[in-house]
Amino acid sequence: MSMRLPQNVMICEVAPRDGFQAEKTFIPTGLKIEIIRALAETGVRQIEVTSFVHPKAIPQLKDAEEVVRAVEDLKHITLRALVPNVKGAQRAIDSGIKKLKLMLSATDSHSLSNANCTVKEAMDAQEAIVEYAQNNGTEVSGSISVAFGCPYEGRVPVEKLLQIISRYRSMGIREVSLADTTGMANPMQMHQTLKTILDSFSDMTYSMHLHNTRGMAFANALVALEHGVTHFDASIAGLGGCPYAPGATGNIATEDLVHAFEEMGVSTGIDVDALLLVAEKTKSILGHDGGSFLLQAGPCSRLHEKPTGQHKQG
Amino acid sequence: MSMRLPQNVMICEVAPRDGFQAEKTFIPTGLKIEIIRALAETGVRQIEVTSFVHPKAIPQLKDAEEVVRAVEDLKHITLRALVPNVKGAQRAIDSGIKKLKLMLSATDSHSLSNANCTVKEAMDAQEAIVEYAQNNGTEVSGSISVAFGCPYEGRVPVEKLLQIISRYRSMGIREVSLADTTGMANPMQMHQTLKTILDSFSDMTYSMHLHNTRGMAFANALVALEHGVTHFDASIAGLGGCPYAPGATGNIATEDLVHAFEEMGVSTGIDVDALLLVAEKTKSILGHDGGSFLLQAGPCSRLHEKPTGQHKQG
Repeated sequence: MSMRLPQNVMICEVAPRDGFQAEKTFIPTGLKIEIIRALAETGVRQIEVTSFVHPKAIPQLKDAEEVVRAVEDLKHITLRALVPNVKGAQRAIDSGIKKLKLMLSATDSHSLSNANCTVKEAMDAQEAIVEYAQNNGTEVSGSISVAFGCPYEGRVPVEKLLQIISRYRSMGIREVSLADTTGMANPMQMHQTLKTILDSFSDMTYSMHLHNTRGMAFANALVALEHGVTHFDASIAGLGGCPYAPGATGNIATEDLVHAFEEMGVSTGIDVDALLLVAEKTKSILGHDGGSFLLQAGPCSRLHEKPTGQHKQG
Repeated sequence: MSMRLPQNVMICEVAPRDGFQAEKTFIPTGLKIEIIRALAETGVRQIEVTSFVHPKAIPQLKDAEEVVRAVEDLKHITLRALVPNVKGAQRAIDSGIKKLKLMLSATDSHSLSNANCTVKEAMDAQEAIVEYAQNNGTEVSGSISVAFGCPYEGRVPVEKLLQIISRYRSMGIREVSLADTTGMANPMQMHQTLKTILDSFSDMTYSMHLHNTRGMAFANALVALEHGVTHFDASIAGLGGCPYAPGATGNIATEDLVHAFEEMGVSTGIDVDALLLVAEKTKSILGHDGGSFLLQAGPCSRLHEKPTGQHKQG
């Protein structure tokens, strides 16, 4: 047995969207901007900054335009935003967003619960968003929620993923995020799923969005790495979860993922100590975290002072 | 890339020793026995029931004899106990223990802190314990604490492990537990370490004792599985930790490990739902858990009711 891992990975920080939208109270815009700017100092190169949904649907992100305009000067960061429809795409592009992310579910049950439409209806509706973005020279990535397990239907057959990826591909999309929204994926399933997907559509970039709901997120990330996947989402302090997926808890914490990757010699370009300071700050602003090992234990590099000698020589 | 995993594994439940000794208060003997007997009903085949240390050193386990005698009738379970010296081995064997476990640290700093002697001194002292056990026809397994990372010295060179394993082997011991006491191991290190150890001493049985301190325990278990390792320690409700290792938190929870293995098609012989009931009961007895994903989220098989149709047809 050998273990070959990529030398470099790209981690997209999603807390400003995925984490902040899951908070019960509205985080003041100034604090959001402060956290995004702090994240941008750690070596992070891509941030999902907000979602251009209707303010009534997700009031926590009603300040989308204001947030994006306030961080648009961070030219070394790819600012990504979630858009549910053409109106959202217009708002995002007008605000200065350079990369849109589409979202749909792998199963009809989750799609109906989350977006009140079937998967096919969701895919049909995305055609117009992609066309709008392409006409405006804006990059679009796709995503698939509950790609491995649905809280209503259980394990998701890989054929459903292939259908959706094929449809995204035919729209001209070349990057798809596979989201284990409720942390139901296991490493064997991850292996088999990625093998099938990579065999079928090898010209796409896949990105992994993993939740640690049942403790398997990092093992799933490891398997994805071994398949050559180099794009991962993660959320500072483990914030987030899907408000429409029962039992869905924290995204894998960015500090945990960065630390684990760096310990294995996989370069993230991110300074884990700087990141940990942002995680601590974010936790103190929100009053809680969403599940972060490093916030509790610190990195492996933080050693303790050697015990002094009660030991008798000889 | 392929993924080949063993079909069956053996998980040793260690909460009655590792978990209960880490509790601040003494758990009444009757409750300990109740939990051990409940565990024995779930399909678990090996339990580390107690430690025969001096009652003043670890008063939480001062009832070692009483506990062992009360569960000795569980003939389908291998009852294992930790012994620090010949006196402990005598007490254990007299109580009916059939498998002893020795303990030492990979580094002098940890050994001095934990046992007030160097690694070499600890190994020298173990000779007499092994001789005593062999004369009494009792199986002995070895173990190495902080085998991957020491909280005082950092990453542990594999040469230290080879020296200790070699010494154990020369004593006639054929099973060694590698403990990541402070959760500092990463999967690449696990891969490289196991490769070296298995190349050097292929006739030994290795068992993994993993802590999830930094979120890497299950990924490390996966790598060990891929190397053909089939023996794992785990602790119900994630109880435990090393009182002498700063920052050491929870063992990997038995219910999390069993669930993840079974999800991958690796048979543990343990009923995850029955185990989860014992975890819940143990948590309610102690008033807390030590970090358990499944106690929070439930198994993947526990689906939610499908949302009913607000959806407009067509």
